Amino acid sequence: MKWYGGVEAGGTKFNCIVASDPDHILAEIRIPTTTPTSTLPQVVTFFNQVQQDHSISLASIGLGFFGPISLDPSAKDYGFITSTPKLSWRDTAIVPFFEQNMHLPVAFDTDVTAAAVGEGLWGAARGCKHLIYITVGTGVGGGVINDGKPLHGQIHPEIGHMFIPHDFSKDPYAGNCPSHKDCLEGLVSGPSIKARWGQPAESLPADHPAWDLESDYMSYALANLIVSFSPQRIILGGGVMKIPGLIEHIRAKTISKLNGYIQNENLIHNTEEFIQLPGLADRAGTLGSIALALSVA
Amino acid sequence: MKWYGGVEAGGTKFNCIVASDPDHILAEIRIPTTTPTSTLPQVVTFFNQVQQDHSISLASIGLGFFGPISLDPSAKDYGFITSTPKLSWRDTAIVPFFEQNMHLPVAFDTDVTAAAVGEGLWGAARGCKHLIYITVGTGVGGGVINDGKPLHGQIHPEIGHMFIPHDFSKDPYAGNCPSHKDCLEGLVSGPSIKARWGQPAESLPADHPAWDLESDYMSYALANLIVSFSPQRIILGGGVMKIPGLIEHIRAKTISKLNGYIQNENLIHNTEEFIQLPGLADRAGTLGSIALALSVA
Repeated sequence: MKWYGGVEAGGTKFNCIVASDPDHILAEIRIPTTTPTSTLPQVVTFFNQVQQDHSISLASIGLGFFGPISLDPSAKDYGFITSTPKLSWRDTAIVPFFEQNMHLPVAFDTDVTAAAVGEGLWGAARGCKHLIYITVGTGVGGGVINDGKPLHGQIHPEIGHMFIPHDFSKDPYAGNCPSHKDCLEGLVSGPSIKARWGQPAESLPADHPAWDLESDYMSYALANLIVSFSPQRIILGGGVMKIPGLIEHIRAKTISKLNGYIQNENLIHNTEEFIQLPGLADRAGTLGSIALALSVA
Repeated sequence: MKWYGGVEAGGTKFNCIVASDPDHILAEIRIPTTTPTSTLPQVVTFFNQVQQDHSISLASIGLGFFGPISLDPSAKDYGFITSTPKLSWRDTAIVPFFEQNMHLPVAFDTDVTAAAVGEGLWGAARGCKHLIYITVGTGVGGGVINDGKPLHGQIHPEIGHMFIPHDFSKDPYAGNCPSHKDCLEGLVSGPSIKARWGQPAESLPADHPAWDLESDYMSYALANLIVSFSPQRIILGGGVMKIPGLIEHIRAKTISKLNGYIQNENLIHNTEEFIQLPGLADRAGTLGSIALALSVA
């Protein structure tokens, strides 16, 4: 059996894993995101310790990182975190660090693209060539697979910062995105819900008006993604999406907003399949990084 | 010299061309869009006449069509117009018709994707691997090239039907999209401008408030396309985009809305290059269909 190392690197923690696939997970660890010189060596130590403890050799490493990151293999800064607001991580060489310290092939992408790759390989989008993974938590991000391959464009998508209709008479909250105020992230993220209603998302009851707003905004975003990318499936991950009943509202409102214009049989007649929670649940990110690792092993 | 036949097929007219490239155009004709049994044979007659008159043989045919169309080569209805509101064209076999009547290789895509391919090959996006072509005229449509290839997803993009912020206190017009009212097309198309202001776009002076609204909506759409696809270039075609000064307003507002979040050097420092009018001008569609034809010759 081949083993791979995976890292889901977020703003507060690095979730690290050694696995072959979702049914064969050897070890997992959570390392706090502090500074590159502290956090990155701890990841290497974890991978080396697991190799030693289990007498295995990793075949490759997959990294799903917070961004923005440089994904152009021909660029001088390929494999770097670039202009992130987390200043100590700005312009940090990630891929070179792991190549030099692990002497293994390294796959690198955004955290949300890793999750999309994992959901496409093992999760709720198995067999789909065109899929989108969206996470709604502290922030909002999205990864796109088109024709079986991660879509990067010149940099990579930043879907969380899409602009959507915001009816101030219904929702006077200004939005909390530091760059755009009421972009998608500024209206639907966990912190925006807490700021708007004075309590965290998970403490709001199912009949709270928060969920009508949240599903309304999310369905605008999904409609926009559907008319832009024509995906076969959309996976909704992240803490906020765990609220019971929320995805059902989002499904219904997405269909209602598109109003029959997009004649996609599966979207219209099998919306529960088209719009889903992650099949890999809380491991969408870490197992996604293992799925990335497979592609370079 | 190799010659190709191209068709830009729209709801009111089929623009047909025989050319090698933008510098070598042998013949052009405009055929009204009536019914398939009338319009399609006229296209074949034109191509055959040009071949006879000039003693040439076409190498292939490129078709850029109004949609929705079926682009999945494995689908039973590949090469068909599918659920179009133009009833006489619904479920019409386009590629089979040209294959059977011209006995030539046929390339098929949406009209806007053809224009995107042409702009990437010969026009204002030469050398770009990631580009988007948007047309704003009777309707609004968009074609996307990612990694050098037309992006289709499961069906194809319908970018004109994206939802964007609509401030009713500033613009009480409800929008005229039959499916979505105030989606992008419902707010910025030529007919929506005429319906809102009571006179056609081309008769409104440069300082008319119409252009502040138009550039505002278009810049929301461009910002959304930039955060979604991370393109290298966006080309703005169609009749409405010819209004003097409009593209300058759109550029400035797009940069302002993104507010520095997308650290794309060319977007920020060279916006006049990033957001452009079609280099092929009114032939973006027809020469785009020639560019499609090249890919199958």
